[in-house]
Amino acid sequence: MKILKTIAEMNEYVRKNKKRGHSLGFVPTMGCLHDGHLSLVNAAKEECAKVVVSIFVNPIQFGANEDFDKYPRVYKKDIRQLKGTKKVDCLFMPEKEELLPEGFAAAVTVDNELQSVLCGQSRPGHFKGVTTIVAKLLNIVRPEKLFLGQKDFQQTVILKKMIKDLDFDTQVKVCATVREKDGLAMSSRNIYLSPEERETAAVMYKALQMAESMIELGEHEVEKVVNEIKRKLKEANVKIDYIDILRAENLAEVSRITDEVVIAAAIIVGKTRLIDNVVVPVK
Amino acid sequence: MKILKTIAEMNEYVRKNKKRGHSLGFVPTMGCLHDGHLSLVNAAKEECAKVVVSIFVNPIQFGANEDFDKYPRVYKKDIRQLKGTKKVDCLFMPEKEELLPEGFAAAVTVDNELQSVLCGQSRPGHFKGVTTIVAKLLNIVRPEKLFLGQKDFQQTVILKKMIKDLDFDTQVKVCATVREKDGLAMSSRNIYLSPEERETAAVMYKALQMAESMIELGEHEVEKVVNEIKRKLKEANVKIDYIDILRAENLAEVSRITDEVVIAAAIIVGKTRLIDNVVVPVK
Repeated sequence: MKILKTIAEMNEYVRKNKKRGHSLGFVPTMGCLHDGHLSLVNAAKEECAKVVVSIFVNPIQFGANEDFDKYPRVYKKDIRQLKGTKKVDCLFMPEKEELLPEGFAAAVTVDNELQSVLCGQSRPGHFKGVTTIVAKLLNIVRPEKLFLGQKDFQQTVILKKMIKDLDFDTQVKVCATVREKDGLAMSSRNIYLSPEERETAAVMYKALQMAESMIELGEHEVEKVVNEIKRKLKEANVKIDYIDILRAENLAEVSRITDEVVIAAAIIVGKTRLIDNVVVPVK
Repeated sequence: MKILKTIAEMNEYVRKNKKRGHSLGFVPTMGCLHDGHLSLVNAAKEECAKVVVSIFVNPIQFGANEDFDKYPRVYKKDIRQLKGTKKVDCLFMPEKEELLPEGFAAAVTVDNELQSVLCGQSRPGHFKGVTTIVAKLLNIVRPEKLFLGQKDFQQTVILKKMIKDLDFDTQVKVCATVREKDGLAMSSRNIYLSPEERETAAVMYKALQMAESMIELGEHEVEKVVNEIKRKLKEANVKIDYIDILRAENLAEVSRITDEVVIAAAIIVGKTRLIDNVVVPVK
């Protein structure tokens, strides 16, 4: 596994692989890797000749009062894990100044309702930071396929839209959320949780599963389903950031469930904000 | 000369050429071609294996009260001219819906003083439209080199910044402004001018040349030089949009001329807005 730190080295690596006709699969991460990330690596290796992973804690996707400073950085452990998979060909691990030097001024945005709902409401500017950095990474890595986790569902929808609208020559593959035994979605932020909080946090996926069952059993009123989720979360003394049911395809509001929907939740357990979602297909 | 209308066809064309190791030179235009555009084609052919020209009257770079509807569209003549050069390998001529379909929502911006000075002040949103469409075209054509005319000086600076900040793998080549015999910069908008207006318009470059001479003769006070330009233009009964002298490298304001500067002008002759500039190197 090559570890490259500069854009110039990456350009050379990518050019060489393109010339040889090797397809590139790309897994962008912020490090503190878990089995969710590794499942993306596995998927990439199955579909592409070479797998490129990036680790970059992207400052411009954090709000002023968010956890950028304390976001876990365990680079040595990350490198060990990636090497252990024997499936990663290249790790891109740039310093902040390499990707965002003094005077950096460009931005890439998706200016529609996709970025104003769900996490877009709770985290203003977050998705602008995501689309800007991913646009850069796509230009640097020029991957045939980009692998993203479903846990960040809104992010997958926004990045797909960015890629389509700006004609990046990259296909997006969304992989299923990987979960702990009790159903909690794996997240780098789970390490913030105390043992009790960790136990409490499992309620989110249980509430989402319950909601999924309600819909499968014929409940089509969004409001009723949302209220049930809220009731269940409040019982567990969890603070709710948002619970919403939206059309999965374009995150449009719905009052009745007729199309494929995403049930998306963000909760705060102790001081830690966690998100999760389930996608419910139409029958 | 191939004429391609869709992104899918362009993708195929570009992929084929990349595979063969052909370098691509790209000249984006809005059509109504003149010798300025053709000089870009010549430069591209000298430096690259294949030359791609695009013609697209980009609606998102026009303001609501600007001349999008009446902007000259003379596609047959353009095609004839390009064929005549025998230097263009591929003409990309998409319909509006191909590049900007219903629901298009992405944007690429350079969010600093570069886009707030000069034309950025007179034409709010203009450069956002330019950077967004050029980002798309760069992703579609993936050229080794992009050829731009110096007449749109601010555009060249902003696009260079976008390309650098977003890591596009494309080099920018700025070619000298091509002029009519009396010095008027060639522009697709010159055809709006009546014979008298056409004659009057020549004063802009004469005023810029005069300013250049003043600086070369030792005048370093921006205000004095700008006032002289304004005096000369007012004598000719020309309406001034702006006259400014800025550091050429980053369009920063200066009061004394010590670095390379650009003297940039925008005037309105009759109903037609015209721009021009000269770059004055430091001695």
